[in-house]
Amino acid sequence: MSAIYTQTLNRLIEEFGRLPGIGPKSAERLAFYILKADTKSAMALAAAINDVKTKIKNCKTCYNLAESDTCDICSDPKRDKSLICVVEQPKDIISLEKTGACKWLYHVLQGHIAPLEGIEPEDLTIDKLIQRVKDGQVKEIIMATNPNMSGDGTALYISSLLKNYNVKITRLARGLPTGSTIEYASGKILTDAITGRQPLE
Amino acid sequence: MSAIYTQTLNRLIEEFGRLPGIGPKSAERLAFYILKADTKSAMALAAAINDVKTKIKNCKTCYNLAESDTCDICSDPKRDKSLICVVEQPKDIISLEKTGACKWLYHVLQGHIAPLEGIEPEDLTIDKLIQRVKDGQVKEIIMATNPNMSGDGTALYISSLLKNYNVKITRLARGLPTGSTIEYASGKILTDAITGRQPLE
Repeated sequence: MSAIYTQTLNRLIEEFGRLPGIGPKSAERLAFYILKADTKSAMALAAAINDVKTKIKNCKTCYNLAESDTCDICSDPKRDKSLICVVEQPKDIISLEKTGACKWLYHVLQGHIAPLEGIEPEDLTIDKLIQRVKDGQVKEIIMATNPNMSGDGTALYISSLLKNYNVKITRLARGLPTGSTIEYASGKILTDAITGRQPLE
Repeated sequence: MSAIYTQTLNRLIEEFGRLPGIGPKSAERLAFYILKADTKSAMALAAAINDVKTKIKNCKTCYNLAESDTCDICSDPKRDKSLICVVEQPKDIISLEKTGACKWLYHVLQGHIAPLEGIEPEDLTIDKLIQRVKDGQVKEIIMATNPNMSGDGTALYISSLLKNYNVKITRLARGLPTGSTIEYASGKILTDAITGRQPLE
């Protein structure tokens, strides 16, 4: 087959095929789309890929994605600098920010502790978080790691390290997801909902 | 939302989102994949897009995709130069070549006649095909346009132009698709199969 397409086109099909969720047929379709697209828009895609790999780095303070040393959130003067919300990855910040309910700062751990996968605490940005707490301005750490075994484990580990500092440690509430039904809620979710029941206002 | 991602990442998500079959969620996933991928493989994709837009052109003889003036098929000395198979687009060549049954040359029309879509005969490469016939070596033209209204119309138009040249004009056989069932064949397919019935060998 490789002798039929031109070499350059084969290479593009191959490269598209490496992307997640893009099978051989989709890769072919995308490559032909690029072949037929006007040069300007095809080049815009190539340039955007290039820019993402060269311009985006991690914020020096919180490890969020940034295009300069400090990310947009850390350099926002309206943020409450006494609150740090700890997340596993930059995508989590986006989900939280979409709610519009957060006026705090963040700290991106860059993953969760998972010894079986070879991810130890020192592979994460935990020491930088401790440093931020040591610097004094922080009053509360909100753990927003994923509500699963490794996320909870990571949060627990971090809170044990922060025990001796004068900082409040909270985590996002657990309970029934709004819009769901009790009939289909798992035992774990119901247990959380019962244990953490809240006053009806 | 655009204030949350960095500007460069937003631009890549937007560019991926322009590709066919890539929705907003997929575009985001692809952009994050590029962000996390090692620089070498991400740059390889950017370079491949770039190369496709700069290196691939049309063969000067048959209008197949080529990276030099003449495509691999036209420059293959083993091909029978007295047979030209006429197709609508380069992808059709690939399908035909995969059968391994073709040792002929091709001519890519770059579409089909469709007056309602504003595609007139002069928008296609029909005059170049006539020129190839005039040049003398060709004995047979095999019409392999799509077996539908516009493909058949295009084939008919071309054969009317070639009437006065000493060249045989054929088209790919119509009939029951191998592996199908008569029960589900359409009336049009059955009519073709009955009209074109072949001796059982």
